[in-house]
Amino acid sequence: MAYIDLQNDLPGIRGPMVYRPETGTILNELAEILLHDDNNTLSRGDREMIGAYVSSENDCFFCQHVHGAMAQHYYQSEMSFIDSIKKDYQTADISEKLKTLLAIAGSVQKSGKLVTQEQIDAAKLQGASDREIHDTVLIAAAFCMFNRYVDGLNTWAPKERQVYIDRAAMRARDGYSQSGLQK
Amino acid sequence: MAYIDLQNDLPGIRGPMVYRPETGTILNELAEILLHDDNNTLSRGDREMIGAYVSSENDCFFCQHVHGAMAQHYYQSEMSFIDSIKKDYQTADISEKLKTLLAIAGSVQKSGKLVTQEQIDAAKLQGASDREIHDTVLIAAAFCMFNRYVDGLNTWAPKERQVYIDRAAMRARDGYSQSGLQK
Repeated sequence: MAYIDLQNDLPGIRGPMVYRPETGTILNELAEILLHDDNNTLSRGDREMIGAYVSSENDCFFCQHVHGAMAQHYYQSEMSFIDSIKKDYQTADISEKLKTLLAIAGSVQKSGKLVTQEQIDAAKLQGASDREIHDTVLIAAAFCMFNRYVDGLNTWAPKERQVYIDRAAMRARDGYSQSGLQK
Repeated sequence: MAYIDLQNDLPGIRGPMVYRPETGTILNELAEILLHDDNNTLSRGDREMIGAYVSSENDCFFCQHVHGAMAQHYYQSEMSFIDSIKKDYQTADISEKLKTLLAIAGSVQKSGKLVTQEQIDAAKLQGASDREIHDTVLIAAAFCMFNRYVDGLNTWAPKERQVYIDRAAMRARDGYSQSGLQK
């Protein structure tokens, strides 16, 4: 049960978003631009995967399953593929470029100061643009916020993974703007 | 020097905010609502102090000095007062209520999962409302994002504390909306 009376019974981040719509709207706009907006050379699947990976490293059940299901939807893959990336992206069947971006995201998850010039050089060598590196850092940083918001208020989350999978197609179609504000 | 070409020489978070104004605008709106908006029972000084404290714990030079100077401006105090809170808020000359909120913020800085029922109860005992606890958690979480964005891209920061103090009055007057987008 959440530490405060959210005045609704919505799961995960949706509870505090509806409780405080002034900030909820802004957080949804941030997710929309970073994860859903098509004006981006990183695929939606890769951006969602970066968020799911950081959420997994932060052990945030709700976020890793929401965004793992989103990545799975875009990749049109099995969930076991998403799990293999979260478990060990270095040996997973993904592009070398995504591996270098996940390495940067993994540093950001622990501390911005742990990102190294070598990690940046490796990403650029695999073709990552400045904008792609920027977005990777900001997506990883944003999930460090989302995860702490969800867990710091002790929100509840559905346990069944299928719940998250079932919602992914709708979220992919509608995007994030206002999404948390749907009761 | 920043890891990517930000196409401007602005310090700290202002560099990437101008580089990517689509997200810069949103991040400024979030800071505006959380830190500057007057529709809040937490004082601007206390909200800035929570941000400065989390930034100090994350060892983010730019953010802790920007927001430490903002707190100092609102408190009309010496900078040594801000330093005393960052160093050991439990023994600092602040309200018992703010101490309980900084304890929650300190947990969020490390992990949302470290916030405890005891910390929440202590804050409520000191008169903290649900909304104040909500905002404390989200401010602390947001600074975990801002700090990682600033340091993950290796942005530069002015070394002299006076630079931050000199800008605080203007920022207090104008707020954060669009602030990072001023070249």
